[in-house]
Amino acid sequence: MIRAEHNDPVSAHKRAKGKIEILPRIHMDNPKDLTTYYTPGVADVASLIARSPDLTYTYTSRANTIAIISDGTRLLGLGNVGPFAATTVMESKSVIYKRYGGVDAIPLCLNTTNEAEIISTCRYLEPSFGLIHLEDIESPKCFVVQERLAEQLSIPVFHDDRHGTSVVATAGVMNGLKLAGKKLSSSRIIVNGAGAAGLGIAELLAEAGAKEIYALDSKGIIYKGREDGMNQFKTALAEYTNKERVSGHVEDVIGDADVFISAVPSYRFDRSNIKKMSEKPIIFALSNPNPEISYKEAKEAGAFIAATGLSSNPNQVNNMICYPSITRGLLDTNAKGLNKHILLAAARELAKSTGNKLSVDNVIPTIQRNNPLSFMPNVAAAVAKEVVRQKLARLSPDPGEVRKEMKERIRRFMKIERKVLGKR
Amino acid sequence: MIRAEHNDPVSAHKRAKGKIEILPRIHMDNPKDLTTYYTPGVADVASLIARSPDLTYTYTSRANTIAIISDGTRLLGLGNVGPFAATTVMESKSVIYKRYGGVDAIPLCLNTTNEAEIISTCRYLEPSFGLIHLEDIESPKCFVVQERLAEQLSIPVFHDDRHGTSVVATAGVMNGLKLAGKKLSSSRIIVNGAGAAGLGIAELLAEAGAKEIYALDSKGIIYKGREDGMNQFKTALAEYTNKERVSGHVEDVIGDADVFISAVPSYRFDRSNIKKMSEKPIIFALSNPNPEISYKEAKEAGAFIAATGLSSNPNQVNNMICYPSITRGLLDTNAKGLNKHILLAAARELAKSTGNKLSVDNVIPTIQRNNPLSFMPNVAAAVAKEVVRQKLARLSPDPGEVRKEMKERIRRFMKIERKVLGKR
Repeated sequence: MIRAEHNDPVSAHKRAKGKIEILPRIHMDNPKDLTTYYTPGVADVASLIARSPDLTYTYTSRANTIAIISDGTRLLGLGNVGPFAATTVMESKSVIYKRYGGVDAIPLCLNTTNEAEIISTCRYLEPSFGLIHLEDIESPKCFVVQERLAEQLSIPVFHDDRHGTSVVATAGVMNGLKLAGKKLSSSRIIVNGAGAAGLGIAELLAEAGAKEIYALDSKGIIYKGREDGMNQFKTALAEYTNKERVSGHVEDVIGDADVFISAVPSYRFDRSNIKKMSEKPIIFALSNPNPEISYKEAKEAGAFIAATGLSSNPNQVNNMICYPSITRGLLDTNAKGLNKHILLAAARELAKSTGNKLSVDNVIPTIQRNNPLSFMPNVAAAVAKEVVRQKLARLSPDPGEVRKEMKERIRRFMKIERKVLGKR
Repeated sequence: MIRAEHNDPVSAHKRAKGKIEILPRIHMDNPKDLTTYYTPGVADVASLIARSPDLTYTYTSRANTIAIISDGTRLLGLGNVGPFAATTVMESKSVIYKRYGGVDAIPLCLNTTNEAEIISTCRYLEPSFGLIHLEDIESPKCFVVQERLAEQLSIPVFHDDRHGTSVVATAGVMNGLKLAGKKLSSSRIIVNGAGAAGLGIAELLAEAGAKEIYALDSKGIIYKGREDGMNQFKTALAEYTNKERVSGHVEDVIGDADVFISAVPSYRFDRSNIKKMSEKPIIFALSNPNPEISYKEAKEAGAFIAATGLSSNPNQVNNMICYPSITRGLLDTNAKGLNKHILLAAARELAKSTGNKLSVDNVIPTIQRNNPLSFMPNVAAAVAKEVVRQKLARLSPDPGEVRKEMKERIRRFMKIERKVLGKR
């Protein structure tokens, strides 16, 4: 297995010749193997599944396999670079899924940007997968794709840019407010950006109990009845934010704000704004690779807590600390869908996981500073617990078992890594 | 890794919990790995590919990754059992692809039987794959899907039921006729069945030089101008078979026939027919699991050579001995398509591979009786050589290199198998 020895990512990728491959879980090299796992034996299994399609979860790889779907229209900070370019990013996500969640994730980058075609493709692919992970699809198309699929499929649809970001940011804000001695329900929160990240964060904070949220897009503050640049998702957002129907821009609501969150790459947050905020202001500048205000500048201007998407700063908001866990929890409980209660359970558990290391520069765990085994399995277990609560199932999987299972899956991979793929 | 210890394929599959999984090829556990292979480093690679999509072959897993596509409408001998049931069979094919060809094959079973939807789904999936392998789709839909995709995609489309079967059967017939001291060009050949297998065999035998072929379907002998039960594929077949436009059934053409091949599960070939054939008759009864005539009965009735699809008989016609090699050869030469010349090159090399072990009970190599490393890499090299010949490329990959590469890939897997996944 290849390690990043060189500084140059391009040559490192060239040497790797792809970041993932398929590994058989069974032997297939003698007549007994062939007649058991291939013909004629496999026909017995196929006949069983034909009568009861849910048996794919018992007899095939489906129970642990997900599709990472992207059309490459909003890739990282690069914008619309297409499905070919997206492949390399989705492969990295696949590695992270396996390494940190024991999940087998297949990158499928689609050569269409048409909403209906993306939806139908996912629908046709359903029999092979236990979950659909949507990634880097432009807004608002990504919302339509996600919500239609959630209606049409009987497997969960995880929308990373909306759901993943919202879980990590919400956990960070919860911890930040705790350190500031403030309550979420009485905090004034500005969310700049109404794409996947902004909208997801606003809705999860509201779900968590935030009562005073102001969301903004390129046209300014979103309010009920605004006519310019609205869509059905912003209209829904206007229902539970900005109750006084304030109009204007960041400057019109930043006064006395407790939290400012931004996910608008072109936006620059002026340090003078921080002075206008309430005591112990919390700043989340999430655009990558150029945050709306740098960690350093925000702190110098008086931010109590500053978080960015950069690994070089404290408080990195990075979805990778949550998506392997959330998906693990959903797969292990055979969840049929995903909702805000499940995301909130994940965010709460993630917030807890900083434990007694909670500090202004550690409101969010990172795999650089925390052992992923110490918190990611707990988040999976919290998700599983919430799914089961929702199912009102009598025969509920023990969250302790889910935690143990995830640890074992991660350890199994680490063993493969050590034994076969090269020493550290 | 699990071995088939029990006789029961169902419990063996249950224990396996899926026959394949994803293995990362790179480390992703420290900050350096993360910044090189994930953000921000991966953005450099994505930007490169965005400018030149063919770089997916250099920087992603695409160069070695294929999709196995099925709608489950014609699965094994089971018929139309749907995409959920098909998943387990496609996983087995994936294991064989890796084990015997070093190819990473992703099973994708589609929840649609609509021709146009299957075609468009494959088209959207193209950016992630180096080849599309079509499997167990009913006829004539399978032909339409294959031929449309071949026109629309810039990667090869391998139609296993047509191409794979034709290569193995043609190799077997070539060897059989050699032992019988007959020439293909002057042999009378009956092909019963005009589905994927029958049609594929008839066309590859014609390509190999057979001049006197009679093809039959459920309506009887196919002839130019026949009106009943024709389709565009049978019409094309009528152009180069049955020049005298004979009508009727098997009994009307079996007299003096040298070779009888059948791929019609419901058909029973009476032993009395064998007496009517010319000296040293060759019988290929390909339906599984119930051949049109058993190996034993055919031999007792005077067959010089009898072949079936069963591993328990000599001369097993099993696509698995060719599809890993053909795909390997196509991927390693970055082939943009597949044609009869390439298939014929594969069939000829496969025929040669019995070497001095050629006998009436060994006209086709099997992995049970031959070391796959002794012949499968040679078939891959023959395919590569033919692709390169067609490309008229000056900078041609050395077939010796392709052979060596395939051996190394198989050995690498065998090493993983031994080290990590359990001893023999």
